[in-house]
Amino acid sequence: MRGTMLYGPRDVRVEERSDPQIIESTDAIIRLPATCVCGSDLWAYRGVDSVTEPTPMGHEYVGIAEEVGGAVRTIKPGQFVVGSFFASDNTCPICQAGYQSRCVHAELMGAIGTQAQFARIPLADGTLVATPDIPPDDLIPSLLAASDVLGTGWFAADAAAAGPGKTVAIVGDGAVGLLGVLAAKQMGAERIIAMSRHEARQQLARAFGATDIVTERGDAGVAHIKNLTDGLGAHSVIEAVGTQDSMLQAIRSTRPGGYVGYVGVSHGVELPGEELFFAEIHLHGGPAPVRRFLPELIDLIWRRQIDPGKVFDLELPLEQAAEGYRAMDERRAIKALLRP
Amino acid sequence: MRGTMLYGPRDVRVEERSDPQIIESTDAIIRLPATCVCGSDLWAYRGVDSVTEPTPMGHEYVGIAEEVGGAVRTIKPGQFVVGSFFASDNTCPICQAGYQSRCVHAELMGAIGTQAQFARIPLADGTLVATPDIPPDDLIPSLLAASDVLGTGWFAADAAAAGPGKTVAIVGDGAVGLLGVLAAKQMGAERIIAMSRHEARQQLARAFGATDIVTERGDAGVAHIKNLTDGLGAHSVIEAVGTQDSMLQAIRSTRPGGYVGYVGVSHGVELPGEELFFAEIHLHGGPAPVRRFLPELIDLIWRRQIDPGKVFDLELPLEQAAEGYRAMDERRAIKALLRP
Repeated sequence: MRGTMLYGPRDVRVEERSDPQIIESTDAIIRLPATCVCGSDLWAYRGVDSVTEPTPMGHEYVGIAEEVGGAVRTIKPGQFVVGSFFASDNTCPICQAGYQSRCVHAELMGAIGTQAQFARIPLADGTLVATPDIPPDDLIPSLLAASDVLGTGWFAADAAAAGPGKTVAIVGDGAVGLLGVLAAKQMGAERIIAMSRHEARQQLARAFGATDIVTERGDAGVAHIKNLTDGLGAHSVIEAVGTQDSMLQAIRSTRPGGYVGYVGVSHGVELPGEELFFAEIHLHGGPAPVRRFLPELIDLIWRRQIDPGKVFDLELPLEQAAEGYRAMDERRAIKALLRP
Repeated sequence: MRGTMLYGPRDVRVEERSDPQIIESTDAIIRLPATCVCGSDLWAYRGVDSVTEPTPMGHEYVGIAEEVGGAVRTIKPGQFVVGSFFASDNTCPICQAGYQSRCVHAELMGAIGTQAQFARIPLADGTLVATPDIPPDDLIPSLLAASDVLGTGWFAADAAAAGPGKTVAIVGDGAVGLLGVLAAKQMGAERIIAMSRHEARQQLARAFGATDIVTERGDAGVAHIKNLTDGLGAHSVIEAVGTQDSMLQAIRSTRPGGYVGYVGVSHGVELPGEELFFAEIHLHGGPAPVRRFLPELIDLIWRRQIDPGKVFDLELPLEQAAEGYRAMDERRAIKALLRP
């Protein structure tokens, strides 16, 4: 099959890879009608995360189950399925508590690489959720978004306790931040403040439900959020970047007793304990347990209540994956969908 | 009046101070039948927090309202009252959300110094809660504990989401940690693991409801907690020390999706972002909004459902405050009660 590999910083290649096979009896093999590039793939693309050997890329996926192992009970060949970037058994105590991304048997899909024609999905019964039927083509981008960026933005909004009467601020205008806006809107937030200085992203934030745009960053951004909230700060802040500056911006934009939901993969962050202590916020985040939310998200998409697929503003054949990475790296595209 | 002053590291003196006066019309003056030394007072006593001039000490208090300002409406002279270490209006949006320690008009009682015969209490109507009647003498230590260490341990257990079916671990065997044990028990926790290597404190922890004692610290302590919890970690962890080691011990003892409630005043803590991200815990803490819990705590004490006053294992005349500090510094006493 054809699949995407990263050879080193900014060196993305699509090449022949061996077709995936059932290895464990709990595996499934899926055929992907679409896959995509994640903002978090850029950490390795930019050389921030080091790549020492050619590495398969991609961890977002939807597709038709082609084959299942002998122990798979609920997923059937021919079904259209959505999964997340961690395979999970969905039965251990951690999964049962809603933290499938930290399942005691979790497997990282990024190590498998789903920017490809086919993919092996471990723990298929626990990991995959089947859609009610084979979806129409126009729903596929939204279902693919559910696999990570929607589920991650949703988790962030949930961790930030977004809800009716709340003012929610969002740090980060990538696909996850923008879908955090959508999630906050769905959860009934009263006021949604997107922090962005990029016009196309501001427009999408407004389309997803943002009521205010703050273009300043750092201290000036925090001051603007305070100005909009009677000097108190937002009730709920979503952090969707992962840097020291973005974490401090999120923490400082939150009122005492408020909530920060942080999902930007942490890079070089050291949180000052004394400041955090006196900030008196709730802090929760990490790799999103997307599996927890998939049934609800699939239902919302199926009933066309939400259209998270709008974050894909670039569509390319899989063979042109390198251009997808380039466009996202240069912020010419929010998110690139790839057609195998 | 007589009051306690800190002149420098390990230099505690009880001396004449001017009697407090009503300054703002919202003030009250109280006469203290008992006051006490807090574990957090030891940061300054030990020279970790620098003291550049003679400083009044103490922030825990109960007493009889002697005089109230013209704008005080609910507190009446002659009432017995309990307050917390932050004066608060109890009406601003932050107070109304339950974070009175971060009230927009908060005043730090430590700056007033309640290890004295009398104290001025700002924002009396918001800050003080009257007991149903003048308490019998034997309830005074427990009511005094409610002013800080009980309220702080209670907040930590609440922030750690202690409750039925939960395993709660407690890092720190000072008065706050021990009363975190009591709080977890009251909240219905199934298993309560106190981390202590000090026999008298272990015994009090068991009296308050601890089901297990772990004597190891650091990595060995974490490993023991994991062993007691099927390798997963505790659902809820209370941190009541405030150092880098204790914070990491708390975070690492918590299962993914679990909760850390931290109330040890942070000193020299830097939280590693990447570890925190992948730990996937809930982190909440800070200066406890004790005022939120005072009505409930006073009621439990009044009905003799709890006996938090047991943390006072040393009672001295106020004039011997220096010995109280010494005994706590040397861990000969858990907590010293001072009689003005």
